[in-house]
Amino acid sequence: MDNIPMIAAAAGLVGLVVAFLLYQQVNKVKIDNEKVANITEEIQKGAMAFLFAEYKVLAIFVVVVGLALTQLNDMNTAIAFFAGALASVAAGFSGMRAATSANGRTTMAAKNDGKAGALAVSYNGGAVMGLSVGGLGLLGISLIAFWLSAGETTDGVMNPVSAAAGFGMGASSIALFARVGGGIYTKAADVGADLVGKVEAGIPEDDPRNPGVIADNVGDNVGDVAGMGADIFESFVGSIIAAMIIANDFAVGTAEDYVLLPILLGFIGYTASIIGVFSMSFLKNGKDPAAALRNTTFIAAALFWAGGYLAIQQDLINVEYGIMHSVVLGSVIGILIGLVTEYYTGIEPVFGIKPKAIPHIGQMSKTGPATNAIAGLSVGMMSTFIPVVLISLGILGANEFGGDEYGLYCIAMAAMGMLGTVGVTMTVDAYGPVADNAGGIAEMSGLGEDVRAITNELDSIGNTTAAVGKGFAIGSAALTALALFAAYTAAIGTDADTGLSLLNLQLTEPMVVIGLLIGGGLPFVVAAMTMTSVGKAAGDMVVEIRRQFKEIPGLLEGKEGVKPDSQTCVDISTKAALREMVGPGVVAIVAPVIVGYTLGWNALGGLLAGSLVTGVLMALFMANAGGAWDNAKKAIEQGHIDGAKKGDAAHDAAVIGDTVGDPFKDTSGPSLNILIKLMSIVAVVMAGTGKLTETGLL
Amino acid sequence: MDNIPMIAAAAGLVGLVVAFLLYQQVNKVKIDNEKVANITEEIQKGAMAFLFAEYKVLAIFVVVVGLALTQLNDMNTAIAFFAGALASVAAGFSGMRAATSANGRTTMAAKNDGKAGALAVSYNGGAVMGLSVGGLGLLGISLIAFWLSAGETTDGVMNPVSAAAGFGMGASSIALFARVGGGIYTKAADVGADLVGKVEAGIPEDDPRNPGVIADNVGDNVGDVAGMGADIFESFVGSIIAAMIIANDFAVGTAEDYVLLPILLGFIGYTASIIGVFSMSFLKNGKDPAAALRNTTFIAAALFWAGGYLAIQQDLINVEYGIMHSVVLGSVIGILIGLVTEYYTGIEPVFGIKPKAIPHIGQMSKTGPATNAIAGLSVGMMSTFIPVVLISLGILGANEFGGDEYGLYCIAMAAMGMLGTVGVTMTVDAYGPVADNAGGIAEMSGLGEDVRAITNELDSIGNTTAAVGKGFAIGSAALTALALFAAYTAAIGTDADTGLSLLNLQLTEPMVVIGLLIGGGLPFVVAAMTMTSVGKAAGDMVVEIRRQFKEIPGLLEGKEGVKPDSQTCVDISTKAALREMVGPGVVAIVAPVIVGYTLGWNALGGLLAGSLVTGVLMALFMANAGGAWDNAKKAIEQGHIDGAKKGDAAHDAAVIGDTVGDPFKDTSGPSLNILIKLMSIVAVVMAGTGKLTETGLL
Repeated sequence: MDNIPMIAAAAGLVGLVVAFLLYQQVNKVKIDNEKVANITEEIQKGAMAFLFAEYKVLAIFVVVVGLALTQLNDMNTAIAFFAGALASVAAGFSGMRAATSANGRTTMAAKNDGKAGALAVSYNGGAVMGLSVGGLGLLGISLIAFWLSAGETTDGVMNPVSAAAGFGMGASSIALFARVGGGIYTKAADVGADLVGKVEAGIPEDDPRNPGVIADNVGDNVGDVAGMGADIFESFVGSIIAAMIIANDFAVGTAEDYVLLPILLGFIGYTASIIGVFSMSFLKNGKDPAAALRNTTFIAAALFWAGGYLAIQQDLINVEYGIMHSVVLGSVIGILIGLVTEYYTGIEPVFGIKPKAIPHIGQMSKTGPATNAIAGLSVGMMSTFIPVVLISLGILGANEFGGDEYGLYCIAMAAMGMLGTVGVTMTVDAYGPVADNAGGIAEMSGLGEDVRAITNELDSIGNTTAAVGKGFAIGSAALTALALFAAYTAAIGTDADTGLSLLNLQLTEPMVVIGLLIGGGLPFVVAAMTMTSVGKAAGDMVVEIRRQFKEIPGLLEGKEGVKPDSQTCVDISTKAALREMVGPGVVAIVAPVIVGYTLGWNALGGLLAGSLVTGVLMALFMANAGGAWDNAKKAIEQGHIDGAKKGDAAHDAAVIGDTVGDPFKDTSGPSLNILIKLMSIVAVVMAGTGKLTETGLL
Repeated sequence: MDNIPMIAAAAGLVGLVVAFLLYQQVNKVKIDNEKVANITEEIQKGAMAFLFAEYKVLAIFVVVVGLALTQLNDMNTAIAFFAGALASVAAGFSGMRAATSANGRTTMAAKNDGKAGALAVSYNGGAVMGLSVGGLGLLGISLIAFWLSAGETTDGVMNPVSAAAGFGMGASSIALFARVGGGIYTKAADVGADLVGKVEAGIPEDDPRNPGVIADNVGDNVGDVAGMGADIFESFVGSIIAAMIIANDFAVGTAEDYVLLPILLGFIGYTASIIGVFSMSFLKNGKDPAAALRNTTFIAAALFWAGGYLAIQQDLINVEYGIMHSVVLGSVIGILIGLVTEYYTGIEPVFGIKPKAIPHIGQMSKTGPATNAIAGLSVGMMSTFIPVVLISLGILGANEFGGDEYGLYCIAMAAMGMLGTVGVTMTVDAYGPVADNAGGIAEMSGLGEDVRAITNELDSIGNTTAAVGKGFAIGSAALTALALFAAYTAAIGTDADTGLSLLNLQLTEPMVVIGLLIGGGLPFVVAAMTMTSVGKAAGDMVVEIRRQFKEIPGLLEGKEGVKPDSQTCVDISTKAALREMVGPGVVAIVAPVIVGYTLGWNALGGLLAGSLVTGVLMALFMANAGGAWDNAKKAIEQGHIDGAKKGDAAHDAAVIGDTVGDPFKDTSGPSLNILIKLMSIVAVVMAGTGKLTETGLL
């Protein structure tokens, strides 16, 4: 079994090669339309420029934190931290490069090859991201595991917990910056472009005269591809690491197989994902592209489950058979959370149950923006409850399957269940913004009605997959954070004499309650910071777009040859994102350190639990309120709301609600997923030093 | 020392007599203006009609729950539950009766006697509420304590924990219904009247042509007097009961004095409050009415502290001297939370620090309602953090003062510190809506500019006291709920063999985490329910007011003798409030029962902690966002925001934000204070049966 890490690493490499081949295949699609070519290039240039600017800032951060780690922990942890950061950057870069090549090519394929061709291009564009995330994660974790086991045998200096957690922390840090920066970038552009373009000047969305439109399209990639990718990469890596650290605490003898199981499952899930991705070659020709997308994930999930059970049954690895049930349970819970998300934010019935939330918001829009806002906020709040109950059921079930001995381990395994087939689920996620961009490019290039019908259909499917993907992201973040929390308690260790944990996390301990309260407050702080950032940056954007409409002669009138200065808008978004992402990032990394070293390690435990609870709830609230506002607007536009239609007062109110929802669903909400994971992994890294007893705060 | 309960009961009775005398004094003010007399009568009639209708619904509820308690607990608990409910009802009734007499009389005093006279009438009107809440609380708790000690000596059957908690549960249940019902009543009327009157018809606020105005003024009393009174009554009673139950667990010998201390402190604080209230007779003649109001509370607080220290030092009661420090700390924390609230929601500098939140929202209003909403929401979220840190410091300090033995007890004592002088702080709170109503009545009766100048000044002071009062209410609710949580763990008891608690509330226990998640979700659910209720009821109100403007000839034109049909609007608010208050009430009472009996008593502990954390945060978020939106609108009207003024687009945006904030700050936010206390006390009552071990869920 010792060769599991090497096999997994090899699979990761193979997957990366596949991703590269898919990228080349996407690039083979010719762009034989000058406008499409120009816009595609402009978006790619903007996106790449942002990434490089972001990497410069991150490089400083990574070096500073890395140096700190060499002092607080050890050199190995610092190296692992660099590796984790690098892997996350590589996944984000390659995914975004492919997505920004695939968008214009999807438009061209829609024109030249029809729906099946366009679906294939956009799907393959997304698959580069999906396979990169899965492959780099698997490769990184496997190499770390191999390195650790080698290190342990030669000199015993290696601290496996600290180094493994360091890798996760590297991935996590990049993820937070990518999510927050990406979220601010995209929403500053989106809100700013809409406020001046749609509301003030009365021109359509994605109109080429609007100087903010390119930044808006760049933003979709920066936020939804690179940001989402880094988020899921982190969850994937985090859940594996958490399981490994928890297993590391098991009685010697059984420990090793349990440490290796998550890597084995990662390998099986990744292989299944590659097969799922390739199944699109056949599925794309079916009538329903939405079904094709779904089926690629179902194929992968089925193979993943079957492979997992088989591996245990055939004694490839010596672990309890029941462990696999919790993996399956995790997948099921993830799917159910996605469906609940769809119910609260969607227009169409979910398994025959008619959604009530969107009609409610639609009706409340008729009495103006205030009642629209009240309705959206209450829908968002209400939508948190069933997912929280589902997550609770997941914990309950996993704990039952694991029994007294493996309960916490199985919670990490449930997270693995959600994330095992990350290669294909992330593909479907990344497909969304590619299709969205393709629609925008078709609009801006003035392509025919038939082309836009195809891109619109693919885009609207992307909206549903995005909602489901967000539910999945939050669900997996909750379980991953919980697993990391368990890893923290495991890493702190037990008293040599009594065998009891050195932590006392009884809720009757005042320090635990204090941690709980402060931790509970942090998601509110980060949400407030990110919303304020979007508001400020959007304000700058508004001023610039207004200026251009006023000062560039002929722009608003659409005079031939007059072009907006898109680059300035791209610069505004870029600068705002880079400036404003620092604050939340620092909060997330510094808060656990300060609380741990001043109030003690029990308070830190409370902090993690508190931030987990409010972080998950606020993330669900904000994501779903935003999604519901968005679709309530669309429902009015599509005639689903009696007595309201596009252009009337109810629609105006709905547009306002949608704008409030923009930072909710695409900036603040998603940032909270990462906040709770990052704070947990920072805690694990601190605990991994093994020196916390020396602080006298235990 | 055994006579402490009797002395306290006597003081309670004396205070109630004083309240009655003040009520008579208020009633002596003659209303020699027909319009003022009519409006005052109409508001009082509407308020009383609502209370009686509410009591009918509550009677059914109280009987059902009371009968259940005779089965689940014992007859004594049921009797105590009835007594608690009755006391809460009596406090609410008398306070509201006085407030609805004092409002019109304040207007008259402003006309006939000037500012000092008007201040005295409105203050005395509020004092009836303040002294009733304090007096009935003290009387009730003292009688319960006396009864319990008598019962214990005769037959030993009496279960003191269960009966004391029963009293608190009675008070708590009434409080939730009063808060939720009152909040829905007032905001349905307010939002409905504003949307049609101010926004659609363009007539001023409190215009007598608007059919919803009377309901709006009734609502101020129903929500801010009766609702707030029941809320604080519950906190006062709850903190005393929690301290008594925690002390009941102390080693025999020291226990008795610690059990009696909260009653003694209640007595001292109440006596100090009466003196504080009377100091207004002299203070009213000063130049600054705001200072006069503040000083009455400071005088009472100083006497309370001095009296407490003296009582311990003179060995009137045999407890650790340091306990009193936590009482003082609690008061200080309460005041600081109030100041932070003022900083985030106020226009004027707080101790020389210029608020940034209101100018920020004001500026963001210029780009429309969407950015105004984003700004208000982010200010609300950000405003939660310092209060949470202050509450944490309160817990930390109290725990230090109490040491290992009395730590949790001292947390309850810190709550006592916030609530000891409830007689005078509640007076100042209830003064607010009286002054607000007086301003409205002056407007509706068309009294002169000079009269309105006085009522406006008194009203605007009321806005600040209301903001501070809300901060106090949340802070005391947090500490009271925490104390009740500790009482729950104490009431569950310890294992006879090991001496360890029968509960295991380690955060690593999956059941505790599940409880934490579900409990965390409940405040979101209740907030969503109450917001939806307000939205729906306001919608009904809009339809009715539009109908009257359309169908009653001459109404909108202000034709002599044409009056709106206010009664129908009052009925709409009444019915909506009664219908919609049931759901949240049932959730609050049923959720802990279900979780306890299905997932076990550890999960219930987690639920209480989870709801405490998110309840406090959401209450702060919603109250402060609402307050900030309200004042941002006022700041624009008063010319504090550069480039924005009354009637322009920025002001329109700010009015929309204010309307969103209405249910935030006056319905949903305040409901959460009570939710967390009520769920905690239900848990204590269940634990008080002493039979939970038999359920096999421990």
